[in-house]
Amino acid sequence: MKATAKAHTNIALIKYWGKRDESLILPMNNSLSLTLDGFYTTTTVEFKPDLTDDCFYLDDEAVVDTQYDRVSNFLKLIRNYAGKDNLFAEVHSTNHVPTAAGFASSASGFAALAAAAARALNLNIDDKTLSTLTRQGSGSACRSIYGGFVEWEKGEQADGSDSHAVPIAPANHWDIRVAAVVLSSNAKKVLSREGMKRTVETSPFYSSWVDSIPNDLNQIKDGIKNKDFEKVGAIAEMNCLKMHATTLAANPPFSYWHDTTMAVMHAVQELRESGISAYFTIDAGPNVKVLYLPGDENTLKQSLREIPGVHDVIVSKAGQGISYL
Amino acid sequence: MKATAKAHTNIALIKYWGKRDESLILPMNNSLSLTLDGFYTTTTVEFKPDLTDDCFYLDDEAVVDTQYDRVSNFLKLIRNYAGKDNLFAEVHSTNHVPTAAGFASSASGFAALAAAAARALNLNIDDKTLSTLTRQGSGSACRSIYGGFVEWEKGEQADGSDSHAVPIAPANHWDIRVAAVVLSSNAKKVLSREGMKRTVETSPFYSSWVDSIPNDLNQIKDGIKNKDFEKVGAIAEMNCLKMHATTLAANPPFSYWHDTTMAVMHAVQELRESGISAYFTIDAGPNVKVLYLPGDENTLKQSLREIPGVHDVIVSKAGQGISYL
Repeated sequence: MKATAKAHTNIALIKYWGKRDESLILPMNNSLSLTLDGFYTTTTVEFKPDLTDDCFYLDDEAVVDTQYDRVSNFLKLIRNYAGKDNLFAEVHSTNHVPTAAGFASSASGFAALAAAAARALNLNIDDKTLSTLTRQGSGSACRSIYGGFVEWEKGEQADGSDSHAVPIAPANHWDIRVAAVVLSSNAKKVLSREGMKRTVETSPFYSSWVDSIPNDLNQIKDGIKNKDFEKVGAIAEMNCLKMHATTLAANPPFSYWHDTTMAVMHAVQELRESGISAYFTIDAGPNVKVLYLPGDENTLKQSLREIPGVHDVIVSKAGQGISYL
Repeated sequence: MKATAKAHTNIALIKYWGKRDESLILPMNNSLSLTLDGFYTTTTVEFKPDLTDDCFYLDDEAVVDTQYDRVSNFLKLIRNYAGKDNLFAEVHSTNHVPTAAGFASSASGFAALAAAAARALNLNIDDKTLSTLTRQGSGSACRSIYGGFVEWEKGEQADGSDSHAVPIAPANHWDIRVAAVVLSSNAKKVLSREGMKRTVETSPFYSSWVDSIPNDLNQIKDGIKNKDFEKVGAIAEMNCLKMHATTLAANPPFSYWHDTTMAVMHAVQELRESGISAYFTIDAGPNVKVLYLPGDENTLKQSLREIPGVHDVIVSKAGQGISYL
């Protein structure tokens, strides 16, 4: 009744932006990500007959707030799936995702939690089913079940049974890298969950965003298949700008960008003009992630670190999917 | 055969963004502006029988480049209207619009040129007709014929005969002010003409922009009528963000914003949270214009000047329409 799993976070190249079902976490559009080697969570789940409630330790500290509720709600879901409703668990998680890097640790966190819990319960499920379950803990976590390039198919069913990730190309298909540009000041005024919701409900541009996704996906999958870095980078950058544009037209309008966010975007575009093939993407926060090829790593790191307002640059290769320790 | 006219520039609160006819300069959507007292152009036009071509002096220097072509093409249009195709003019213009302030001097420039040329040719036309003619020199210039709050009705006719400005409320209706925030670095990478065109042709958000204008216009006109500053400011700021959002979704995507542009936007939003009623608007360039009420002028100027990357802050009241000297 005990298992340990490791899961990496992922960066979306085609963004997940907007839910069609808030409680089942069903997205309005397919998304596509790259799982990242550098940032991961390790989680041990042990179901113990003598426990009367779940307990959750993150980096050796007991968690009791809303984060606990999310973990406990997810455990409830997975033990219900296993038909073991009265079995509680002790969960120990260790995050190797620097919070400041602006990666959602919930992606690696819920993927590791789901994998460890499923194994501890001796659930004999395939990765597709594991991804479907994981999705209900944290949407983008369902992509972290697989390594390399991963698509989250939004699905059509009302119960979400066909909304899960599928692998597109493994991590060793292509060595493309991601630099997380960490900004000095980092307060996020609008949470991603709230921002998504406001955009879906009020932005006149939202339906065009959804309509534009299938073409972006076809293009980027073609680029991944052919290892066409300019194509993959350009589509990812366009898709990110388009997502952020939807928030500017929301009511009230909002933006996740800081002045340094804008400075990094311009710097990346200038690097490109100077011959360094680099493209940016930005999630629901001010940090910028930069896609690049291994040969440009040193130049790129140095250039990005020189931008005023940039605190650090952390690089990562493509990573593997779920593993068990 | 000689006349001198003065015209002020204007700032759009509901943006003119996209043409339905490039050569007649017919817009896709109505726009609404405030004419500004602080920034103007004075132009003298003299038609002389002995001239074999037009000549154009700007701030006492002879102009010979594409700027000359635009002026000469406009004179051709207006003398054709007067039935005097073979009469050329000497034009002297003085710009009181600091280029760095990021106001299009073409708005005040073509309004003054049109008014002076029409008077020099003894055309007995009303302001509506003058505005229709002016539009063909520079789109937003058609709004500078009138003072105060002005709407440019896009019109429906293919020949543009019903596409001209109409006065909404005179300058003395309401003392609202505009601070032009001048940034230290000011290069504009994508020209407004080219940016508009690319957005109309490639942005999936463009049609939703056009569809959203009638409601913005109704709201802001209601706010102007009732002197509801929060309403007018909020609609102007939303409309500006929405316009800029359309460019982020263009192909290739682009933005007029610099890092300091973003810093000023955040500063204005923070001023608002601290009780200073101020709202920003941004045209097709990096400079920010801030709407405010007279009582906040000193605090606002000081706060804006303290933002790193801000070079100067130039304030203006509402201004009058065309006048003759």
